[in-house]
Amino acid sequence: MRDRRIQAAHALLPNAWQQAPKEARAFAPVNIALAKYWGKRDEALHLPVTDSFSVSLALGTTTTIAKGEAHDDFWLNGGKIDPATPFYKRMQEFLDLVRPHHSFTFSVHTENNVPTEAGLASSASGFAALTLALNSFFGWNLSSKNLSLLSRLGSGSACRSIAPGFMLWHKGEKEDGSDSYAEPFPEKWEELTCGIFYVSTKKKEIDSRTAMKRSQETSPYYPLWPDVVAKDLFDITEGIKTKNFSQFGQAIEQNALAMHALMHTAAPPFSYYTSDTISTMKHIWQARNEGVEIYFTMDAGPNIKAFFLKKDICDIISIFKSISLVELTF
Amino acid sequence: MRDRRIQAAHALLPNAWQQAPKEARAFAPVNIALAKYWGKRDEALHLPVTDSFSVSLALGTTTTIAKGEAHDDFWLNGGKIDPATPFYKRMQEFLDLVRPHHSFTFSVHTENNVPTEAGLASSASGFAALTLALNSFFGWNLSSKNLSLLSRLGSGSACRSIAPGFMLWHKGEKEDGSDSYAEPFPEKWEELTCGIFYVSTKKKEIDSRTAMKRSQETSPYYPLWPDVVAKDLFDITEGIKTKNFSQFGQAIEQNALAMHALMHTAAPPFSYYTSDTISTMKHIWQARNEGVEIYFTMDAGPNIKAFFLKKDICDIISIFKSISLVELTF
Repeated sequence: MRDRRIQAAHALLPNAWQQAPKEARAFAPVNIALAKYWGKRDEALHLPVTDSFSVSLALGTTTTIAKGEAHDDFWLNGGKIDPATPFYKRMQEFLDLVRPHHSFTFSVHTENNVPTEAGLASSASGFAALTLALNSFFGWNLSSKNLSLLSRLGSGSACRSIAPGFMLWHKGEKEDGSDSYAEPFPEKWEELTCGIFYVSTKKKEIDSRTAMKRSQETSPYYPLWPDVVAKDLFDITEGIKTKNFSQFGQAIEQNALAMHALMHTAAPPFSYYTSDTISTMKHIWQARNEGVEIYFTMDAGPNIKAFFLKKDICDIISIFKSISLVELTF
Repeated sequence: MRDRRIQAAHALLPNAWQQAPKEARAFAPVNIALAKYWGKRDEALHLPVTDSFSVSLALGTTTTIAKGEAHDDFWLNGGKIDPATPFYKRMQEFLDLVRPHHSFTFSVHTENNVPTEAGLASSASGFAALTLALNSFFGWNLSSKNLSLLSRLGSGSACRSIAPGFMLWHKGEKEDGSDSYAEPFPEKWEELTCGIFYVSTKKKEIDSRTAMKRSQETSPYYPLWPDVVAKDLFDITEGIKTKNFSQFGQAIEQNALAMHALMHTAAPPFSYYTSDTISTMKHIWQARNEGVEIYFTMDAGPNIKAFFLKKDICDIISIFKSISLVELTF
């Protein structure tokens, strides 16, 4: 498994390279999936069962890389990471894919301008920022496609975080994953607005990898998931092209609900919904029944990410007192 | 549509009959579906897409029939029903199927010993009790099969309410519905216990007919629903035969969650879950993680019906303060 990852990484890098600047820094945005990545066809290489689609936020991760000392040192928002943590291990394993030689070590500072507890996927922006920083640290000068491919080896959805705007991740067909990367979807939508409902959760829920795997392996509805994504992806991209917000909104909401339905029907069943999630969903449906167009999506957590048009901001913030507006990047 | 119903009803009744006693009274139990009836292959005759399976409660409906005056008069729990209500219309249409002659009218008193607001389906026990009372009022002396077939024309799931214990509704294949009836499943389970969480709901939710229809017509997962029911029904009946409570419990819970997943993925999406539903589900999952075997089911409403074994009653009522025990009938 590790060998196939190293092979995949080395296929992307120049033949020879050396450390270029003393340190390098890069930013990568958080992305919100609109057509979800839920299920893998290859676990080692993070190859998905379906295409997926996202939009990048202005929030994200800034990563600074320098050569390390005796061993890798990682900092997150100023705090040093304990080598015994899964976070440390995952970073180290990713860096193993690109170390110039066995004893080369890194010092990596990661700053998220996203509240860590907000449940906005920071592993995607984290591995994307790390990839972009490595690219400039070593002077690889990789294409966007190769940056996306490389970051995917850190975290699947990181491949959608290497650029702003709408991103389309092609699932690809090849066994080595060399055609499974994300690229910018060539449309902008300045009117599109996002707001987040931060839903508090007392307990740590099931982690998203386990959630994905259990859905794929046990939900009786999973066999129809690829068809669901194909249809929703069509409506999302058509909605964007024609600026048909209803088509876009219905599709992103249905896609999220269809993903959560896979978890609810997994064995054993589980749910990221909390009481607040349900009441927020129903509040959104009620607003829509009363003529305010707002749709939502949800990832592997209880938070609700809502989308609406700029013209409706005043209505939205007066109806939903707890919504936090976040900036999209186009 | 009405003609096909009248035809179906008359096929079940004796050639000639007359009013036998002055009045007749019958009781029929509420049934809780364990493998759900969710989707119709024939709307007029209430013919289902799949088999379904239920257990009867000791709670239910007692109906008293007498010959009426100028027009049909219906009472529910002592209150006279307004002829302008859908309830009146539905009763009247069912009685139209069995009137000895056009001008024959009925006086029907219905008493539910189920709190009406409890969300326990009372139309099933209501139409079953009405059918049983008609059978004795007119001295039809119908077989259980024919009683089930006739009550089905009033409300689909009423066909499972004509007897106590476990009931299996065969979906049938015939166009006239003459093989779509429920019969007792020949097993008892004295140890099986039921408790209900009455979840309050402020708003009237979508009615269950609309919910079923929208699920069937728009959920992308509906094509797999028949397979889900077939598998769950196998596990439920095997679990009962071998008294394997885990197999039984997992199957009833998965079946309910799979039905609600159809609603969540319908277009437009909707949910009977309330904040309390979600927190009760999670409480049940938590108890199970801690070793207390309790599983739940839910119908087209926010209430949760839990099942567990008699030996665990003391644990259950100490963990779940708001559970109301209800008696099953075997």
